[in-house]
Amino acid sequence: MIIGTLLFLYCRNFFMRSIILASVIFLTAFMPQKKKRVIFFGDSITQQGTATGGFIPRIDSMCKLENKSGEFEFIGSGISGNKVYDLYLRLDDDVFAKKPDVVVIFIGVNDVWHKVTSGTGTDADKFEKFYETIIKKLKEKNIKVIICTPAVIGEKTDFTNQQDGDMNKYANIVRSLAQKNNLPLVDLRQKFMDYNKQYNTENKESGILTKDRVHLNAKGNQVVAEEMWKALKGI
Amino acid sequence: MIIGTLLFLYCRNFFMRSIILASVIFLTAFMPQKKKRVIFFGDSITQQGTATGGFIPRIDSMCKLENKSGEFEFIGSGISGNKVYDLYLRLDDDVFAKKPDVVVIFIGVNDVWHKVTSGTGTDADKFEKFYETIIKKLKEKNIKVIICTPAVIGEKTDFTNQQDGDMNKYANIVRSLAQKNNLPLVDLRQKFMDYNKQYNTENKESGILTKDRVHLNAKGNQVVAEEMWKALKGI
Amino acid sequence: MIIGTLLFLYCRNFFMRSIILASVIFLTAFMPQKKKRVIFFGDSITQQGTATGGFIPRIDSMCKLENKSGEFEFIGSGISGNKVYDLYLRLDDDVFAKKPDVVVIFIGVNDVWHKVTSGTGTDADKFEKFYETIIKKLKEKNIKVIICTPAVIGEKTDFTNQQDGDMNKYANIVRSLAQKNNLPLVDLRQKFMDYNKQYNTENKESGILTKDRVHLNAKGNQVVAEEMWKALKGI
Amino acid sequence: MIIGTLLFLYCRNFFMRSIILASVIFLTAFMPQKKKRVIFFGDSITQQGTATGGFIPRIDSMCKLENKSGEFEFIGSGISGNKVYDLYLRLDDDVFAKKPDVVVIFIGVNDVWHKVTSGTGTDADKFEKFYETIIKKLKEKNIKVIICTPAVIGEKTDFTNQQDGDMNKYANIVRSLAQKNNLPLVDLRQKFMDYNKQYNTENKESGILTKDRVHLNAKGNQVVAEEMWKALKGI
Repeated sequence: MIIGTLLFLYCRNFFMRSIILASVIFLTAFMPQKKKRVIFFGDSITQQGTATGGFIPRIDSMCKLENKSGEFEFIGSGISGNKVYDLYLRLDDDVFAKKPDVVVIFIGVNDVWHKVTSGTGTDADKFEKFYETIIKKLKEKNIKVIICTPAVIGEKTDFTNQQDGDMNKYANIVRSLAQKNNLPLVDLRQKFMDYNKQYNTENKESGILTKDRVHLNAKGNQVVAEEMWKALKGI
Repeated sequence: MIIGTLLFLYCRNFFMRSIILASVIFLTAFMPQKKKRVIFFGDSITQQGTATGGFIPRIDSMCKLENKSGEFEFIGSGISGNKVYDLYLRLDDDVFAKKPDVVVIFIGVNDVWHKVTSGTGTDADKFEKFYETIIKKLKEKNIKVIICTPAVIGEKTDFTNQQDGDMNKYANIVRSLAQKNNLPLVDLRQKFMDYNKQYNTENKESGILTKDRVHLNAKGNQVVAEEMWKALKGI
Repeated sequence: MIIGTLLFLYCRNFFMRSIILASVIFLTAFMPQKKKRVIFFGDSITQQGTATGGFIPRIDSMCKLENKSGEFEFIGSGISGNKVYDLYLRLDDDVFAKKPDVVVIFIGVNDVWHKVTSGTGTDADKFEKFYETIIKKLKEKNIKVIICTPAVIGEKTDFTNQQDGDMNKYANIVRSLAQKNNLPLVDLRQKFMDYNKQYNTENKESGILTKDRVHLNAKGNQVVAEEMWKALKGI
Repeated sequence: MIIGTLLFLYCRNFFMRSIILASVIFLTAFMPQKKKRVIFFGDSITQQGTATGGFIPRIDSMCKLENKSGEFEFIGSGISGNKVYDLYLRLDDDVFAKKPDVVVIFIGVNDVWHKVTSGTGTDADKFEKFYETIIKKLKEKNIKVIICTPAVIGEKTDFTNQQDGDMNKYANIVRSLAQKNNLPLVDLRQKFMDYNKQYNTENKESGILTKDRVHLNAKGNQVVAEEMWKALKGI
């Protein structure tokens, strides 16, 4: 197109100019459009979300149904056990090396959960610092960023999930980072809690949107896919 | 009185009977009434509640103001760091040896808190078992039992206190034990949460009813005293 | 035999006395001897030790090989996840109700391990108190007690198993309880460490005497069986 | 000196060359020598080591006694509670901005300790990754690096300090990083353990080189100063 523009400006003949202009428009329309490469960057939830039935294939299907499959390309990059600083440490290899246009960050469950299961959770203030550093580095490379609140550790609706207090705290950190950095937010925690309030009338600790209190069942993958797809279309 | 009764039954003479009866009534009225001995059985909150300004002297004052000081005698038995099984282990020495009429159990904060601070919290099911065993042993000795839900670890009102989920769970266990064993319940957790909802409008983590997220300030001691005194009068 | 003794004393006739005496001796020799009932009281290691290939069937085999199968009867009573206070809480149901002659206590791994895996380990001083209370209660019923140090969480020989310090501390508590209460000690921790020092030359974290750092493999079950059998024969 | 060299090369006259050469030598000898700026980069132990009686003033004194005060300049940069990734996060502000020649890294206690005290210790593999990244970044700027093993959490000599296993593991990581990156190692853990073996004959948990199991007393500061000074002189 740049060559066309130069030819156009260079050419003083009106007729020739018209031909060049028409050609450029024609070529542009049929040129294979560059797809937006989206990386889903997260932990085991994202890792499992990459498999058949996971939220990533579901997003891909939604994308196709809306005839937007030419616009997006989806890559899952979730590693089991990852916390925010694991994402930070693998930014170069797993994100920048793949030259994405969009990164969807979905992290935080292990930062909270590991406090109880192995004594190696992440302090809230460090969680924020590393998260913000990741955002900053992505933005510096003109990569668009969508961030998600961590969803749940336990689906009970009577406020007795052991780590709900911390989950709310870390979700608030993600919410404030979205606002502060002017980023689209996928508030999965809010969505999951609303959904459970409505459908988990028996106060079960899993089986509504998760299979084991943390990892998504089919319905959970569907809900995550819908929420993320909404944000992706708006990017 | 027993002797009087026997004399009364033994004596067939009506006049003599009348004299004996009158004497018994007379003597009973002026006999020094036995006070109900109340032991407050708990952790550092109770230990500090025994000091000047603590909830126990406050209960004593309420008691006097209502002219009931002849009816009650209050003993604080709180030890810093105690969990439910510590109470269990010192039942003989610190409760039965003192022959109380009433025991107010106020325990649970450390059972939850120590999960995070030293890795030695109490599993929920063991918390219930030891708590119930204590109740059973007290009842076997005809000691009246009042139980209290653990109040707070953190006073934030936006549901981000780290251990709120667990605190709610353990408070629920105490509530169900009260119902199951037909015991008066002092629901301090509910009271503290309601109070904070109303007065902690700035979402502070301490300073409303506690001085340090856990231990009571003057207002906290007053609220606990009022709630416990209501239950004690009803016993 | 009591009946025989009474007949013997009652009978003045020498000949009859001889006959009675001979009968008693004859009957005693062929009378089914009362076996010593041994309960192995512990956690998942004991639970798994009850299965085929476990240390309990191995002890039974050793017992038979030494023609002592008439002297002992073995019962496994291990429950996964048990800590010292779980043993305490199930003393009545799982020990006294079964009227054992000997109890082999093998506990402590979870009291240490759960500090890291769920935040519900047992404080060292409470570990000692509950352990000692169990010993006292068993002794009161004239049950013989054998106690074992907890073996290992991790088999590395370069002193880098995460919880070795605590394991040594809790093993020392068991050792001092054995001495203080004059009980036979099966020092599995010492045995396992010596064995690993000799055979675990590659500093593996499991696979020498355990299959997973904690639970016994075939060799581990054999070592435990040998050590326990030595103590049982001496009882 | 560069100017001198250029003049020297430019000048063809032998006599002039000699004068220039002599001037350069003369000036260099009396030029105020640039001191090596040393930053001690660590946690509360370093923070306290900056105060009077701390290891940094002690190193400064040793330096003066050996008439080397013109060669070194010491800056303490320790922050209470810091773990390896805190050092990483403040590299720009607290190290590079101050243009040091040498950085002495002394970190690791909180990476281990916080597993037990707040559930936010650092996984061993992440400890290594962040540590190595810090080394790499310092080396890229031609800053010399000296690294130290974390010393102790508890001084008991009977192998019952709760976290000794982990401390040994993390010390081993530092040792292997020194070897791998060809860096001077100050093996404080080895030194402290040897010292305690010799002098802590009563198996105390503190009071030998620490005042509280972790932070250094006067003797501890002296030992650390001596070990670090040896490494600094050799740089």
